[in-house]
Amino acid sequence: MPAYQAPVRDLRFVIHELLDLPGHYQQLQGCEAVDGDTLNAILEEGARFAEEVLAPLNRVGDEHGCHWQDGKVTTPPGFAAAYHQFAENGWAALEKPAAFGGQGLPGSLASAINEMLFSANHAWAMYASLSSGAVSTIDAHGTDDLRACFLPPLIEGRWSGTMCLTEAHCGSDLGLLRTRAVPEADGSYRISGSKIFISAGEHDITENIVHLVLARIEGAPAGVKGISLFAVPKVMVNADGSLGERNGVSCGSIEHKMGIHGNATCVMNFDGATGYLLGEANRGMSAMFTFINESRLAVAQQGQGHCEASFQGALRYARERVQMRAEPRLKPEQPADPIIGHADVRRMLLTQKAYAEGGRMLNLACAQLVDQLHHGATETTKNAAARRLALLTPIAKGFLTEAGIEAAQLGVQVFGGHGFIREWGMEQISRDVRITAIYEGTNSIQGIDLLTRKVLADDGAELNALLDEMDSFCADCKAPRELAQQLARQVATWRELTGWLKVAQKDDANLIGAGAFDYLMLAGYTLLGYYWLRAAAIAEGELAAGNSDVDFYIGKRETARFFMQRLLPRANQHRALIESGSANLMDIPDSAFGR
Amino acid sequence: MPAYQAPVRDLRFVIHELLDLPGHYQQLQGCEAVDGDTLNAILEEGARFAEEVLAPLNRVGDEHGCHWQDGKVTTPPGFAAAYHQFAENGWAALEKPAAFGGQGLPGSLASAINEMLFSANHAWAMYASLSSGAVSTIDAHGTDDLRACFLPPLIEGRWSGTMCLTEAHCGSDLGLLRTRAVPEADGSYRISGSKIFISAGEHDITENIVHLVLARIEGAPAGVKGISLFAVPKVMVNADGSLGERNGVSCGSIEHKMGIHGNATCVMNFDGATGYLLGEANRGMSAMFTFINESRLAVAQQGQGHCEASFQGALRYARERVQMRAEPRLKPEQPADPIIGHADVRRMLLTQKAYAEGGRMLNLACAQLVDQLHHGATETTKNAAARRLALLTPIAKGFLTEAGIEAAQLGVQVFGGHGFIREWGMEQISRDVRITAIYEGTNSIQGIDLLTRKVLADDGAELNALLDEMDSFCADCKAPRELAQQLARQVATWRELTGWLKVAQKDDANLIGAGAFDYLMLAGYTLLGYYWLRAAAIAEGELAAGNSDVDFYIGKRETARFFMQRLLPRANQHRALIESGSANLMDIPDSAFGR
Repeated sequence: MPAYQAPVRDLRFVIHELLDLPGHYQQLQGCEAVDGDTLNAILEEGARFAEEVLAPLNRVGDEHGCHWQDGKVTTPPGFAAAYHQFAENGWAALEKPAAFGGQGLPGSLASAINEMLFSANHAWAMYASLSSGAVSTIDAHGTDDLRACFLPPLIEGRWSGTMCLTEAHCGSDLGLLRTRAVPEADGSYRISGSKIFISAGEHDITENIVHLVLARIEGAPAGVKGISLFAVPKVMVNADGSLGERNGVSCGSIEHKMGIHGNATCVMNFDGATGYLLGEANRGMSAMFTFINESRLAVAQQGQGHCEASFQGALRYARERVQMRAEPRLKPEQPADPIIGHADVRRMLLTQKAYAEGGRMLNLACAQLVDQLHHGATETTKNAAARRLALLTPIAKGFLTEAGIEAAQLGVQVFGGHGFIREWGMEQISRDVRITAIYEGTNSIQGIDLLTRKVLADDGAELNALLDEMDSFCADCKAPRELAQQLARQVATWRELTGWLKVAQKDDANLIGAGAFDYLMLAGYTLLGYYWLRAAAIAEGELAAGNSDVDFYIGKRETARFFMQRLLPRANQHRALIESGSANLMDIPDSAFGR
Repeated sequence: MPAYQAPVRDLRFVIHELLDLPGHYQQLQGCEAVDGDTLNAILEEGARFAEEVLAPLNRVGDEHGCHWQDGKVTTPPGFAAAYHQFAENGWAALEKPAAFGGQGLPGSLASAINEMLFSANHAWAMYASLSSGAVSTIDAHGTDDLRACFLPPLIEGRWSGTMCLTEAHCGSDLGLLRTRAVPEADGSYRISGSKIFISAGEHDITENIVHLVLARIEGAPAGVKGISLFAVPKVMVNADGSLGERNGVSCGSIEHKMGIHGNATCVMNFDGATGYLLGEANRGMSAMFTFINESRLAVAQQGQGHCEASFQGALRYARERVQMRAEPRLKPEQPADPIIGHADVRRMLLTQKAYAEGGRMLNLACAQLVDQLHHGATETTKNAAARRLALLTPIAKGFLTEAGIEAAQLGVQVFGGHGFIREWGMEQISRDVRITAIYEGTNSIQGIDLLTRKVLADDGAELNALLDEMDSFCADCKAPRELAQQLARQVATWRELTGWLKVAQKDDANLIGAGAFDYLMLAGYTLLGYYWLRAAAIAEGELAAGNSDVDFYIGKRETARFFMQRLLPRANQHRALIESGSANLMDIPDSAFGR
């Protein structure tokens, strides 16, 4: 198992040098007190927790998995204790509202910590991540009573949360959902139905679990416009906040999965369980999107976090493993050279590095927008952040999870036969990361969301603003000039392609569906190119100014070049596929696919 | 677990319509008696064995795995019985030499069966496949005495075989190997050393195991020119062929792996074990290549077989799973349509189909060349087959295993959340197939082998012959004309690129290493395009002639179009990456990769 080393130096690069988060915090309401030193200190503490507490439990979780018996779920050894330590150290409260016991720190700081948690132990970190999403959702849509009842113990880490969307017959298509809600005289509802794939649905870590459940109130319209959102606690809460009787919620079984074995994926049965409406009746999808959007950004971090973990393992192995001669020779005195000297190994390592560090820039830029959305000084700031975030979220989720899968496969490959052996940990990364392309909306769904709701719905206005920003950065970028020109061409491609799609889709009902995934990937490559160009420009400046951290900045400059020359060109292929139209997918009749 | 359905119709298409194997058998020495009906009958029997005996054991093997205790290895329940049935039914003897109890049928027939075995149960089929490779190698390089001793029980299926190459410190770089061989007075050798990653190294299936072991005779030159090949039986064989005492061979442990759990991956310790030289001393690498080349073609079939298995599962699910509206609607009476109606699901299914069926054409074309190599009527035929096979083998191995990994990932994706759940079997495919890109030479090694030994070594002569053949087929292909033109452009690209590489590599020692993997992929896409064009041309002919199997031929025509428009364009990207040179990989110093 490769020992996880939190990438604190690179996090500091993104936080201070790329995004200047301390300066940005000065513009946020209520975050002005967070200075650079505080930020660095919290980062170091988070790194230590990830490295020393979570990483050692990563393989334990994979090997032990979760166990179900008579409705109870046992998590892997050490998981509960680590969670309690996490809660006691205040990590669950970091960016949560001070009114309910949180520390009120900016979300971007929590986001930097989250990457480390996901890298170190994806399965474990999901318990914390889902609880965090539940807090945000209850805070945004709950009544004062509900917030006062549920938020403090969630923020304290004594309780945890879940999101209950999927049913056996509906995953992507939530309009089909059947779970029922019957109103009671006291204003609560009786929830009945069965949900599947509920992460952290039942476990032995916290004393209570608050399920956020999509259900249909009796008589509600069919489809997504008749869905409401409810908070359904596992254990009822007395008026004084103490725990009462068990609610009608039970875990029917847990799934046996490819990865994230340490996180219990539950079938949850609601049998006339008491639930409390969150937000308006029949507007549950909209309320749930508070949770879904936050989760999508978290999944983007999972994808990127796996890039980092896999890269670290592969890099260490490539420096140690000696096999065949490289040109130039690295160890002339030995019979062979470390494989990091071989071009094809470098291709794999640089792909991982480009994704891990590029994804970090994108994710923290998104987190900065989330800060502005919640704490922006003006409505204008908040609205601008909301629009940009809406555009970037499907790209970050879709692209960085595809990147995570590719990086993890490369990590296995760098290890050769050892990559296939469990004890080295590389194959676990490739199994754990696999779910990220599926949950919180498959990447097909992300592509369609991007193209329809985020690009075409406003006639490309927000996209054009982003493309203009990228264009203008390219135009102003003196060094590295060549990379700026390469990126500018891809920005133009993105713009032209979008214009063409806008027109062409009018005559072809399937053009969007046929091209959405490729569009997502094209967007991801171009966007990551933008961040890599910004990183390279900073690096050029530091190198020119004589910064002594030469290896770090040369690494940035060269990885940016690698990205522009060896990953960004993939965008051209995605363009060609989109332009090939939908007939090559739609003309073949179902019966001609095969038996 | 998706029920495996052997693709007999498509195998017949490749065997009869594409390759005319019955006609080809008339040209082979000793195979003239195999007519089309015999072939079809054997195919049906093989299909039944794969579907009814092996496929039901596939998940059993994954769940139970192999167990090691005190040097003994227990295989999953049912594995040994299935193997005995396989042997009793004569499958292990199919293409083996009649002189030693084989049936003397052409290897291409065995190859068609092998695809089904690998699709149905990769882990199980490896026991048979390795034994087959051992037979070929002993037959090609053993003395008459050794052949008489070892071949009959191997062909009968009472014994099995292995290949022992890898040691802890050497995988790709066999020149570093340390296992020693000390000559004895009786002409045998004492073998001492430790080998790792030995598939089927120890098990409870057969009464003896013949290990083919690479070792260094005392005083031999360093590097690969001092390696010899030995046959080392697990149990010594008496003069009358009965089994004697245990040889000094033992299994020290087995690996816990990502996939192929049903196949024991062993650490094998040789402690002064008696071994018999195969071929000449110090020419062991050359002798072992009989085994390695056969295994590489088998691995290509594993990759392709997983494409088929994953495609079958995904296709069935996509027809059953109902989610959201398609355009046009497939089930207007239901609240949603089967997901096979959605463009992005079709993109995934068609990718799988294009790989599974395209790979089948390539693999059986390779098998036809193996027939010619072994049974060609003239030396000219044999030599021509050897040259072409040498060129195609790394492409088939490398490209079809990458395709297998991609197809398996798509299969998981089509299933959504269910793809991540073990019981559906899709995630097992993605774990089992992963090793194929690594073993029998990683795909990096395949790329370098292709470019250096197979293309540049003869100054592109054999490649040009292949490109000429493809060019001439494109020129003659009247329908589908458009696809022929698309392919012709890619053939020209391949030719130009090779010419450029030939010159450019002289000034850049790392250009080959930097471009080899992309070159392999470009070659694979183009080559598969050639087979798809040939399939489409046949389909056009049959449809024009009014063949009633309309769905089948429309499927071929449309999949060919999909391939040319949505997969073949990837070759352009690979070209661009090769042309980007090696500096973007080599300039970054080791120290700048990160900590």
